[in-house]
Amino acid sequence: MMEAKYSSDSAGKPIKCRAAVARKAGEALVIEEIEVLPPKAGEVRIKIICTSLCHSDVTLWKTSAGPGVAFPRIFGHEAAGIVESVGEEVEEVKTGDIVIPVFKSNCGECRDCKSQKTNACTKFPLQLSTGMPRDGTTRFMDSNGQPIYHFFSVSSFSEYTVVDIAHVVKINPDIPIEKACLLSCGVTTGLGAVEKIAQVEKGSTVAIFGLGAVGLAIFDGYELKKAIPQRNWKVAEGARLQEASKIIGVDLNPAKFEIGKKFGITDFINPGTCGEKSVSQIIKEMTDGGADYCFECVGLASVMQDAFNSSSLSYGKTILVGLEMHGTPLNINSYDIVMGKSLMGCIFGGFKPKSDLPILVDKYLHKKLQLDEFISHEVKLEDINEAFELLHQGKSLRCIIWMHK
Amino acid sequence: MMEAKYSSDSAGKPIKCRAAVARKAGEALVIEEIEVLPPKAGEVRIKIICTSLCHSDVTLWKTSAGPGVAFPRIFGHEAAGIVESVGEEVEEVKTGDIVIPVFKSNCGECRDCKSQKTNACTKFPLQLSTGMPRDGTTRFMDSNGQPIYHFFSVSSFSEYTVVDIAHVVKINPDIPIEKACLLSCGVTTGLGAVEKIAQVEKGSTVAIFGLGAVGLAIFDGYELKKAIPQRNWKVAEGARLQEASKIIGVDLNPAKFEIGKKFGITDFINPGTCGEKSVSQIIKEMTDGGADYCFECVGLASVMQDAFNSSSLSYGKTILVGLEMHGTPLNINSYDIVMGKSLMGCIFGGFKPKSDLPILVDKYLHKKLQLDEFISHEVKLEDINEAFELLHQGKSLRCIIWMHK
Repeated sequence: MMEAKYSSDSAGKPIKCRAAVARKAGEALVIEEIEVLPPKAGEVRIKIICTSLCHSDVTLWKTSAGPGVAFPRIFGHEAAGIVESVGEEVEEVKTGDIVIPVFKSNCGECRDCKSQKTNACTKFPLQLSTGMPRDGTTRFMDSNGQPIYHFFSVSSFSEYTVVDIAHVVKINPDIPIEKACLLSCGVTTGLGAVEKIAQVEKGSTVAIFGLGAVGLAIFDGYELKKAIPQRNWKVAEGARLQEASKIIGVDLNPAKFEIGKKFGITDFINPGTCGEKSVSQIIKEMTDGGADYCFECVGLASVMQDAFNSSSLSYGKTILVGLEMHGTPLNINSYDIVMGKSLMGCIFGGFKPKSDLPILVDKYLHKKLQLDEFISHEVKLEDINEAFELLHQGKSLRCIIWMHK
Repeated sequence: MMEAKYSSDSAGKPIKCRAAVARKAGEALVIEEIEVLPPKAGEVRIKIICTSLCHSDVTLWKTSAGPGVAFPRIFGHEAAGIVESVGEEVEEVKTGDIVIPVFKSNCGECRDCKSQKTNACTKFPLQLSTGMPRDGTTRFMDSNGQPIYHFFSVSSFSEYTVVDIAHVVKINPDIPIEKACLLSCGVTTGLGAVEKIAQVEKGSTVAIFGLGAVGLAIFDGYELKKAIPQRNWKVAEGARLQEASKIIGVDLNPAKFEIGKKFGITDFINPGTCGEKSVSQIIKEMTDGGADYCFECVGLASVMQDAFNSSSLSYGKTILVGLEMHGTPLNINSYDIVMGKSLMGCIFGGFKPKSDLPILVDKYLHKKLQLDEFISHEVKLEDINEAFELLHQGKSLRCIIWMHK
């Protein structure tokens, strides 16, 4: 348990602290002393306890030009921490609260936040902004007084950060902080994709394209459902129930196959060693015509196309979880849709951060959710570039970066 | 009520009768005396009482080359009739039963027929075949002894036809036969699209592209749901419930707008008179960002694209109901899917003919379904070309063709 005894003598003043700054696209991050300005109205300054590295950080860190690209920048959007101080009009959290900052906004007031059909937030639409959501300015300055840009409304590769209250979720402090950190993006995305969006039933065939933390969390959600069949399951049905369910993992990295087994996958396909057959041909053969559910957790149009092609013509759902960064469109034959395939997707697993994250924390605390297995490595802030290297090489699932040790 | 007193002295012998034969693509049908062979094992010979004309008949009648195209041919796939005789192994229906022949198979034994997730039938996949499902041969001969091809497993523009038992549904004879006929394709497709596939909730915004019988049946289903809110509705939700629901009809034929009002539509858009704005721009303005549900009932890729573009980014479901005959693919931006749009579709409204059609018949008999309003014209078999002309000119919704009057 994380004790909530943090004092707030620093409230209202700039804080000097360490941050890992990305000075140029693709270049190693530099640990610098920066200044973090006090939160303005509707904002929260958070002492980040730990953070982890997600593929979106790496993708945008590598990107040198395009919409939402700006350097110097502080990346990081999976984290957990303690509220250091709050700006005016913030009543939802107070100094000392344990919180998760989340890239996905949830103002709680807009039409979409009030709807049960979506986790979108009309007031603060998702964007790769370089500043704060309300005024676009930054709260970070380097030692020369120059602004440093924000990333994805979080910027957690800093000992302190400022986040809009629409992106802050107060959680039960009983959860170990590094486990809470994992709920901030990737794992939650995978869990929600299966629970909120796909609603997989027992006995179904599932294919997961990309065995990172998102893809493996899908297994987690699936295993969870198998463990508690009375909840959220559709009515079990005749013939399919007799069949053994298959959970097929697809990844270019063979090392991911052994890891995947821990999360419940039953079959593996390495697209690099398929020979003349396409991945979709192999999956169709393995599943008697196509998988019931195909999850794309990579973010490449070609893989999305593979996933769609691998799904069952009479029912197959393809669920897009990865964000395509190249703007490549999908080519969909409408005949396949009319015959029964469908295409859907989600941001943050379709979860509303403020109402759903506390539920996931509770599930972890009641051992209904496995999070521990996602942590493959841990480093200190000063070794953050190792975390990039590990993820880049496909060696880590999630590397926890401890900010103050 | 149709009395089931038909005698079957003709069983086992060829029957000479009249049929409207399409000799060449796009040329007026010719009323000829043909010979209808007895049903083989698993087949049923049906005395067609009435039939109606669907756009798919017209589309394929106009098509001179391509897969599944063959002449001379007997079109027609919306119909109702009486079983004249049955082939070996048929126990489900007997001489004198009132039945609906359906293009959509439902063998009842295959994996998909046993699944609750789909109305596909693995044993007899949907195809524009030219003969009988089991052996591919025809049961029709012209006066020169030459074969005449079948259409869509039904071929109802004949006083007698032979249909596989997988395509025959026995119904309650209390329903007037011309109303039963309407359940054979278009109306059922629209009803199912909203009830089985989209699951529209009260207070939602809906856009329907194409105000033929399919599109107008969607209104019917929607009105039905409004009338019985306790059934099949998702939990009513905050802000959206406060909004007046909008049902927007989109059609190039202005005459369809007045007809549509009878079925509950509230707003109209004629794409031909939109000026510089696109249909999707107008719908987005009318619905504060996009419609919750967009139904495509035309079967054109460009209209499907319009429907997708008109749907809400945070939730919009696009439901494809029309079959695209040109093979033009859809260009889908995966970002829209990840953000919350989804794409789905259905054949025959997702209904399983054998179990669901009798329920629809009951609904009609209990005044929970309006069918009467779909019948805009009635003609005799010898005037069948008038029905083609009326549909082609957009003047009819459904024209009942009486076979024996």
